[in-house]
Amino acid sequence: MIRLFFLCLLAITFQCSAEPKIQGEDGYRLWLKYDLISDDVKRNHYLTVLGKYAVVGSSPTFEVVRQELSLASSGLLGEGQEVKEKEASLIIAAGDNAATFAKQYGIEWPKQGDDGYFIHDVGSQNQPKIFVLSKSEKGALYGTFRLLKQIQTDDVLSGINVASSPKVQLRVLNHWDNLDGHVERGYAGRSIWNWHKLPGYIDQRYVDYARANASIGINGTVLNNVNADPLMLTPAYLQKVRALADLFRPYGIQVYLSVKFSSPQLLGGLETSDPLEPGVQKWWREKVSEIYKTIPDFGGFLVKANSEGQPGPGDFGRTHAEGANMLAAALQPFDGIVMWRAFVYANEKNEERSKQAYSEFKPLDGQFANNVLVQVKNGPIDFQPREPFSPLFGATPETPLMMEFQITMEYLGFSTHMVYLGTMYEEVLESDTFAKGEGSTVAKVIDGQLFSNHITGMAGVANIGADRNWTGNIMLQSNWYVFGRMAWDPEVSAREVANDWTKMTLSHDPDTVDAVTTMLMDSHEITVNYMTPLGLHHIMGAGHHFGPAPWVDWLARDDWNSVYYHKAAEDGVGFDRSPTGVNSVEQYFPPLKELWAKPETTPEKYLLWFHHLPWDYRVSSSGRTLWNEIVHRYYQGAEDVARMAAKWNSLKEHIDPLQFEQVRMSLAIQQKEAIWWRDACVLYFMQYSQQPLPDNLEKPSHDLEYYQSLSFPHAPGQG
Amino acid sequence: MIRLFFLCLLAITFQCSAEPKIQGEDGYRLWLKYDLISDDVKRNHYLTVLGKYAVVGSSPTFEVVRQELSLASSGLLGEGQEVKEKEASLIIAAGDNAATFAKQYGIEWPKQGDDGYFIHDVGSQNQPKIFVLSKSEKGALYGTFRLLKQIQTDDVLSGINVASSPKVQLRVLNHWDNLDGHVERGYAGRSIWNWHKLPGYIDQRYVDYARANASIGINGTVLNNVNADPLMLTPAYLQKVRALADLFRPYGIQVYLSVKFSSPQLLGGLETSDPLEPGVQKWWREKVSEIYKTIPDFGGFLVKANSEGQPGPGDFGRTHAEGANMLAAALQPFDGIVMWRAFVYANEKNEERSKQAYSEFKPLDGQFANNVLVQVKNGPIDFQPREPFSPLFGATPETPLMMEFQITMEYLGFSTHMVYLGTMYEEVLESDTFAKGEGSTVAKVIDGQLFSNHITGMAGVANIGADRNWTGNIMLQSNWYVFGRMAWDPEVSAREVANDWTKMTLSHDPDTVDAVTTMLMDSHEITVNYMTPLGLHHIMGAGHHFGPAPWVDWLARDDWNSVYYHKAAEDGVGFDRSPTGVNSVEQYFPPLKELWAKPETTPEKYLLWFHHLPWDYRVSSSGRTLWNEIVHRYYQGAEDVARMAAKWNSLKEHIDPLQFEQVRMSLAIQQKEAIWWRDACVLYFMQYSQQPLPDNLEKPSHDLEYYQSLSFPHAPGQG
Repeated sequence: MIRLFFLCLLAITFQCSAEPKIQGEDGYRLWLKYDLISDDVKRNHYLTVLGKYAVVGSSPTFEVVRQELSLASSGLLGEGQEVKEKEASLIIAAGDNAATFAKQYGIEWPKQGDDGYFIHDVGSQNQPKIFVLSKSEKGALYGTFRLLKQIQTDDVLSGINVASSPKVQLRVLNHWDNLDGHVERGYAGRSIWNWHKLPGYIDQRYVDYARANASIGINGTVLNNVNADPLMLTPAYLQKVRALADLFRPYGIQVYLSVKFSSPQLLGGLETSDPLEPGVQKWWREKVSEIYKTIPDFGGFLVKANSEGQPGPGDFGRTHAEGANMLAAALQPFDGIVMWRAFVYANEKNEERSKQAYSEFKPLDGQFANNVLVQVKNGPIDFQPREPFSPLFGATPETPLMMEFQITMEYLGFSTHMVYLGTMYEEVLESDTFAKGEGSTVAKVIDGQLFSNHITGMAGVANIGADRNWTGNIMLQSNWYVFGRMAWDPEVSAREVANDWTKMTLSHDPDTVDAVTTMLMDSHEITVNYMTPLGLHHIMGAGHHFGPAPWVDWLARDDWNSVYYHKAAEDGVGFDRSPTGVNSVEQYFPPLKELWAKPETTPEKYLLWFHHLPWDYRVSSSGRTLWNEIVHRYYQGAEDVARMAAKWNSLKEHIDPLQFEQVRMSLAIQQKEAIWWRDACVLYFMQYSQQPLPDNLEKPSHDLEYYQSLSFPHAPGQG
Repeated sequence: MIRLFFLCLLAITFQCSAEPKIQGEDGYRLWLKYDLISDDVKRNHYLTVLGKYAVVGSSPTFEVVRQELSLASSGLLGEGQEVKEKEASLIIAAGDNAATFAKQYGIEWPKQGDDGYFIHDVGSQNQPKIFVLSKSEKGALYGTFRLLKQIQTDDVLSGINVASSPKVQLRVLNHWDNLDGHVERGYAGRSIWNWHKLPGYIDQRYVDYARANASIGINGTVLNNVNADPLMLTPAYLQKVRALADLFRPYGIQVYLSVKFSSPQLLGGLETSDPLEPGVQKWWREKVSEIYKTIPDFGGFLVKANSEGQPGPGDFGRTHAEGANMLAAALQPFDGIVMWRAFVYANEKNEERSKQAYSEFKPLDGQFANNVLVQVKNGPIDFQPREPFSPLFGATPETPLMMEFQITMEYLGFSTHMVYLGTMYEEVLESDTFAKGEGSTVAKVIDGQLFSNHITGMAGVANIGADRNWTGNIMLQSNWYVFGRMAWDPEVSAREVANDWTKMTLSHDPDTVDAVTTMLMDSHEITVNYMTPLGLHHIMGAGHHFGPAPWVDWLARDDWNSVYYHKAAEDGVGFDRSPTGVNSVEQYFPPLKELWAKPETTPEKYLLWFHHLPWDYRVSSSGRTLWNEIVHRYYQGAEDVARMAAKWNSLKEHIDPLQFEQVRMSLAIQQKEAIWWRDACVLYFMQYSQQPLPDNLEKPSHDLEYYQSLSFPHAPGQG
């Protein structure tokens, strides 16, 4: 099989050999490929717009706009140039210039925020004259990328009339990157930040990272791991950070840093880091002042405090609010902000883990300074394949909450499983908290609609590494892309984004686009089925989180073990978080707290998250017993991966051979690992259900002991 | 400065924006760029050959040949195709086919080994008809790459008549790559081996790695670090190794593994790893048999034993020969070999470190099994910027010695210093050991001429990583290249190779090629001057080996400290290894042992390696005092880097903008760090010389304490 495989590969390389390059599409260009449009009609249409453009004004951001238009026009059309305004069929303008054009051409420019853009055609059908207008240069840059997306996704430009503004202010990537180049929970190679070579060596990758982020509206990046190394705040490292900040500035991207709360002791030599100590406050004020001298538009701090061993205000008997506000006070004169993570669970507390963030932060509502956001993971545990939304969303009217999504797939198969997270993000954002009655969705909490927050934000834990294709798997570029799109507009449709991404990245053939979009849309549900169906959670390998391990029962803390979460026993399976159990449902608003208190009114996808149910419990949608339904889902999930792989293979002729082959190999791995998850989990739970597998199902190829014996000491991304 | 820098970068990207691709030459294609030849006359000449080729026969290796010819012809010429033999102007053939052609066309094919090739034109000046003939398919592959090099370096093909055979049998890369992706002493990013995704996912990089190696004749690769993880020998990892071996096979590359001597205990659960224990021997026999079942052409083992904490036969009171022979016996039935490293220095021994390898291995000469090579680092200490050759070369007539060069620049500025190692390798290989009288060069020891060894080899510790340009710096690709060329022919000229590489990689403009070749040729001597002039050695930072630190005196073992090696004191500086000192010169053959015993007959480049001399010692070549000569060399070295940087900047218009800018940034870093080395070392030694700097020299910008205070906890590549 390996040999066949090799011949296959050879054949593919051979196919591309008409090109002067070694390889096909290696994925580096992401969704900004700008390949020549082969359809003459289309190309000629776009030529009437992008062939002659004018960028009105000059500045670093407008240089970026010029560079992008030049790159895109020469790529997409084979020609295109900047001309004088009067000759231009595409005009990019900002600020007063934009206002003047609007007036001159009688353009009705809808009201929008500074970073919004308005794209409007004042020309004729055969000769469009399109304006991209914005109050700010940054908005004009976003508008430029939006216009290019229209072309990349085959939309007609004549008569275009698009206004868009970001609904969320801070659209931020979180890099869990250590200073030694290791990326915690990173599955795409080493950190893209080469701290050793900075500030003297600027990798071309940094430029293309900035372009990619700007193209989807991401306007901030936290460069280092939340498990922060205090060295990041030393002068030598601040010079390195500055080099990146200077590079990113024209792209509208601000730089943030994760900080260790005990830095005053570790770096400053103080005896305490107590946030109420004047000496500590002074140390932070001076450090912040030093940072802003180096980086005048520095964004602020991200803090993981009193969580998984990190120091925090709790070490000094202070609250999270007292800790956050101390840093906020130091940052406030410079308009810097604090993103304070709510992911906390304490050793000493007796409370069930899913309840702790709410218990800790709900009482602090109203106590945080104006420039603090509390950053909350989407679910109450930890980026599981599926979780209900965190009950904190909607619970803190006085405190802006920032969403923390994970883009890297710590619990979802690393970088060889194809899982589009758009549907998962959508599911969370569409969830109704009922905080102010029906329609109080998580999206409206995050974008500030619900409580009129003065500051809003969404963070994504990046899946980016130094692998040539950035994310270790071309298909997973879609998750970086959809994160940016949903941070711009939390109500955008996951399907629309999947469709755009596929066109920009993989193919313009309509059937192929449909097929891939469908695969993407189905992929998360499929994965949940073969990993953690029906609300099961936290049953993965210990430490590295790779593969199935529902048997883990040896870790020091109860709530680090798989058995704690599934509670499989002869009487049934699942975690009773209803009022008869730990009662986490009480943290939700009515009617959820009542609905989720009972299995029959709990959505099946959360069934075993909230309830411990007997093996013969009847699952209403299917009429199957719980045992049979679990088995069914595991088998269905694995089967669906095979179906996806077969579907992909049928698309071969419509996709670049290197892209095709890379995804083919990954899907083959996913197929194997889906069966591994299925077999290991089914065999494990069978011990307790004491019921057989239905006869028609393929039997596991190994016994449970075999699966339990597997170990992966070098699995990537370990913390 | 940072801001200016950024604008600069922008300007450059802007310049390339006429291209549809995001970037210029990113270095991935190495020396196999195959860009279209723009000169019509040249292109038409090559078209008469490469335009119509025939590869006679079919096999995996010949598929590789076909693929390469297709890639090269379409790239270099824009056209080219495989045709029938009779129509072909270029014919590749091996074995019986080759012999038939030779006979048919009356070609006088010189005698050569299996892997040699003969390229011969039987056509006319206007219409060449060129045969690439070899006894083996592998030789035909090498010949194909050689023919392509002729084209890439602008050589005329008409009348070509080139015969070449490898002078060394085993031409092997050593990857010091750990299973978690970290590369010990790696400065080009993470390991290219993605063990997690293997065997299912074959990165395109593996294919291009194989192509690059085959193009320069490298025929073996040791995949893992000599500080070996025993897990490498488990079935799961052997399947991963197999995937690579299967891929590399058609390229003529065999796979080897580093093994841990205590594997029988660690993996097999035995109570001992004593090589004379039958149980241990049985364990290895079975393990080797398992490996060959998986990988029928497996190459063998590389072993680091009883060295820097690694286990070895000495732990059981056995000799290196007993250890090596036990493994050799297990490998022998499968034609596998053992490469046993001579890099040993023991804690308990009282002997000076530079003498230990000789003392340990010289007495074992004649005791090693037939399929064992002893792998010796070029110098007696450890890959210092400059060392005299190891006295083991020439000292073991009965034992084949394998050269171990370091390609990665552990002690030479990592990946931001431009140091071409060709001259350093050449200096070592040209060194006369006098083992059998004058002319007994190291090259002749290595290629087996001197002692008629039945087996010969050269190993290079790879500088390859997952950085897009493979080596962290485009210029350092030349070191991978020259290693391969010198392993094929230890007597090839470093300048010729530098010239070839420059043409293939950077430019075809003759003045540019000359300028870059000169920079390459000068670069090592320049670096030695600003790091360790006149035979100084081992004065770098502790642990990470980054930057100057002649003050290191706190490490547990004497011979881990800088002060041990330079012995600077008021009475002078340098290590007395003459008969009045540790007398390591006695390990060399006459006349070296007499010549190097006295400072006046010791080459100045080794002066302080062998002698401790007073500060006012008169250096004969310059007439300067030792102190003034040391100062002069440090300043000269730093000045020469500035000169190189200025030279490079003058070449801007002849070099791809991205290549240009990347090297420009690296040279700027090198310039800064050369001054750092200079200032730190001069200030340090000044304490002992108690003499001032000459007035005309730029004063160090900091005091010694400053340099001593610098720390680099996250310097890359740490072991």
